[in-house]
Amino acid sequence: MRAVDIIQKKRDGHELSAEEITFLIQGYSRGEIPDYQMSAWAMAVYFQGMTAQETGHLTMEMAKSGDQVDLSPIQGIKVDKHSTGGVGDKTTIVLAPLVAAAGVPVAKMSGRGLGHTGGTLDKLESISGFTIELTRDEFLSQVNEVGAAVIGQSGNMAPADKKLYALRDVTSTVNSIPLIASSVMSKKIAAGADAIVLDVKTGSGAFMKTLDDSIRLAEAMVDIGTHVGRDTVAVISDMDQPLGFGIGNALEIKEAVETLQGNGPEDLQEVSLILASHMLVLGGKAKTVEEARVVLEELLRSGAAFDKLKQMVAAQHGDVGQIEDLSKLPGASRTLEVKADTSGYVASIEAEAIGIAAMLLGAGRETKESVIDYGVGVTLVKKVSDEVKAGDTLAVMHINEASESKVQEAESKLKQAYSITDAAVPKQPLIYALVTKHGVERFV
Amino acid sequence: MRAVDIIQKKRDGHELSAEEITFLIQGYSRGEIPDYQMSAWAMAVYFQGMTAQETGHLTMEMAKSGDQVDLSPIQGIKVDKHSTGGVGDKTTIVLAPLVAAAGVPVAKMSGRGLGHTGGTLDKLESISGFTIELTRDEFLSQVNEVGAAVIGQSGNMAPADKKLYALRDVTSTVNSIPLIASSVMSKKIAAGADAIVLDVKTGSGAFMKTLDDSIRLAEAMVDIGTHVGRDTVAVISDMDQPLGFGIGNALEIKEAVETLQGNGPEDLQEVSLILASHMLVLGGKAKTVEEARVVLEELLRSGAAFDKLKQMVAAQHGDVGQIEDLSKLPGASRTLEVKADTSGYVASIEAEAIGIAAMLLGAGRETKESVIDYGVGVTLVKKVSDEVKAGDTLAVMHINEASESKVQEAESKLKQAYSITDAAVPKQPLIYALVTKHGVERFV
Repeated sequence: MRAVDIIQKKRDGHELSAEEITFLIQGYSRGEIPDYQMSAWAMAVYFQGMTAQETGHLTMEMAKSGDQVDLSPIQGIKVDKHSTGGVGDKTTIVLAPLVAAAGVPVAKMSGRGLGHTGGTLDKLESISGFTIELTRDEFLSQVNEVGAAVIGQSGNMAPADKKLYALRDVTSTVNSIPLIASSVMSKKIAAGADAIVLDVKTGSGAFMKTLDDSIRLAEAMVDIGTHVGRDTVAVISDMDQPLGFGIGNALEIKEAVETLQGNGPEDLQEVSLILASHMLVLGGKAKTVEEARVVLEELLRSGAAFDKLKQMVAAQHGDVGQIEDLSKLPGASRTLEVKADTSGYVASIEAEAIGIAAMLLGAGRETKESVIDYGVGVTLVKKVSDEVKAGDTLAVMHINEASESKVQEAESKLKQAYSITDAAVPKQPLIYALVTKHGVERFV
Repeated sequence: MRAVDIIQKKRDGHELSAEEITFLIQGYSRGEIPDYQMSAWAMAVYFQGMTAQETGHLTMEMAKSGDQVDLSPIQGIKVDKHSTGGVGDKTTIVLAPLVAAAGVPVAKMSGRGLGHTGGTLDKLESISGFTIELTRDEFLSQVNEVGAAVIGQSGNMAPADKKLYALRDVTSTVNSIPLIASSVMSKKIAAGADAIVLDVKTGSGAFMKTLDDSIRLAEAMVDIGTHVGRDTVAVISDMDQPLGFGIGNALEIKEAVETLQGNGPEDLQEVSLILASHMLVLGGKAKTVEEARVVLEELLRSGAAFDKLKQMVAAQHGDVGQIEDLSKLPGASRTLEVKADTSGYVASIEAEAIGIAAMLLGAGRETKESVIDYGVGVTLVKKVSDEVKAGDTLAVMHINEASESKVQEAESKLKQAYSITDAAVPKQPLIYALVTKHGVERFV
């Protein structure tokens, strides 16, 4: 078998066999197949696509390229959740305790923020003492005892994916749906999940800008799950504006806590309930999403979900006092309001620009070496469809040590992010579609 | 400027600017742009193509990447000729003296055989003493004095093309018409030609198997010539069977000499006259190809063309006695006839298989280190459309030191190369089309 022939086969639109994909990925992992052949292959895949069969093989081969987490010591069906990424997305912090409170074990490995805003781990670390580094035994026993644990990815998970992704990043071959889908799923599978709920974001602030592309990506991921025997469901949710109001690490913890206490932002609560409902169904704790929702709403109302968060924080050495009294979380030394220049209605809020503004204030990493300031960020005051009068506050910046020029740049980013029109703007949908192995259900 | 953005632009089907192409080729030449980005770019070009403008820029950038031969000390319009390669193609050896005899200076740099059969240089070296290594001054003065010189490519010609071609070879990105066209033309331009006649082979034994692809390649090369100010004409000629009867170095010299003496194979003479006619027109020595042909036929008849070959051989230290008495050329110690198993008509002769048979007997290089035996090869006895009776000789093998197993393998290749049918087979066309800056003229 020769890599050059496999590249040609894909270039000419033929389906690669399992053996050919294994040869390619194992050879690449071992350094026997050079980068220049893999990048040519990736570009051929960009143009010719891959069948569900091929994508499934690729995913498993990448999952098997490194450590595979064995979650079997945890009782029950382990359901993982993955978001394709958005601004203000703190659903994991709501979902882990909420779903655990319903009896579905959550053994979650999460990532750092790679883009402009912090990741789930950064957000959790804004709670003093909270550690995301547990040994394997600590991790497993916490999930068995408390029901939930969120830790950092350790060891050598799906290194073939890591190597291939880095190559795709510099060869303009990122935007291939089968390659994106297999990249995401290989890591989830290596992380040991039995079932997976995907939150595929769509809109200007998402990786996938159009609903059709988002659905295609969701279908590709659900297909992989089906092929490799991991029940997978994908919810297509809105990212035409940030989720909730807070963007910034402690600000997002606060909002997650408020949601678990039953008084969070409507959109965050709704997306969390929908994702959690599917997790309960896949975890075998409810027969239907409707039944699951009743359970979950009661867990919020009763305080059981919030209690579960406190248990999780305590188990991971975090300061529970800070989530009991949110004013004790890291904060900002001053705030600055960003005002509207014109009157009208908010037509859209460019999520990426909001994320960059938060990063400029210190909430995210400009470079790998940047140190995050947990207390800073942005609070949105107006959201899409809200009426605005000139002089109204659109958003509030939470500032500590950012230089004046960074603050000004952030302010201008925030102003530009808002587009205001004369005509009234209807509320945007929050959930666009559901993709399961049975097909696509569109809600819009 | 970043390579990743240029790859994306091409991937998305946009035209690259001259600056972008310069950035890419110069960066690649200097080792600043890595192989893995160039191979992804080449694959994107494979799918998206290039405009005539882009292909022209690429060609000039590759031509400028190394030494550029200055032929200005040679008087007259220097017309180069290039063949896309075929089996039994000895036209250069006919054309150089023939065209020189008509007053068009021929300053030709040629290559070694890369594929199964020897190249023009190998063929010429079957004449004892013939040297293909001349200094620049010797080369230029020989062309000025004798009218023709054929030497090996020296120095560092179009190294960017060499590097890119080697990369394309291992990444399944060879078969892209703009990339093939720019590769050929960059070398011709670096070699200093004012005008170029291309012999684009078509058919089973050619790089381009179909007439349409051959015409597309010819158009791309003629377009480049037009863009960079080098008048270019392409003749599409048949390679559904080898050209002439002899395949092997001295066998081909013999046939070229016979053609210059007016009694060579009909197909070789015809292709040579057509290519030479275009060279005369581009070289300003005839107004039309018809006028040129009259001149050329007289040069063959009078012996002037053959005299020119003798002058050229003498100037390059070759043994003129060997071409005056062809039996003095290197020969074979024995011959073996390959017989037909069935009766009928020759429908096709797979040129590549014939080339491999000749190589197996020692006429070409199996590896870079192989030493060529100038005396061996294959003589075809039957050609397409000829009637054959079972037991008739199809071809003759000329053998020196080949092992019995190699001879058997060659014999079986030769038998397989011939396909014989019951029904009579019409003569095949020799010239399919002419491509000039004015368009395509099809003859079939």
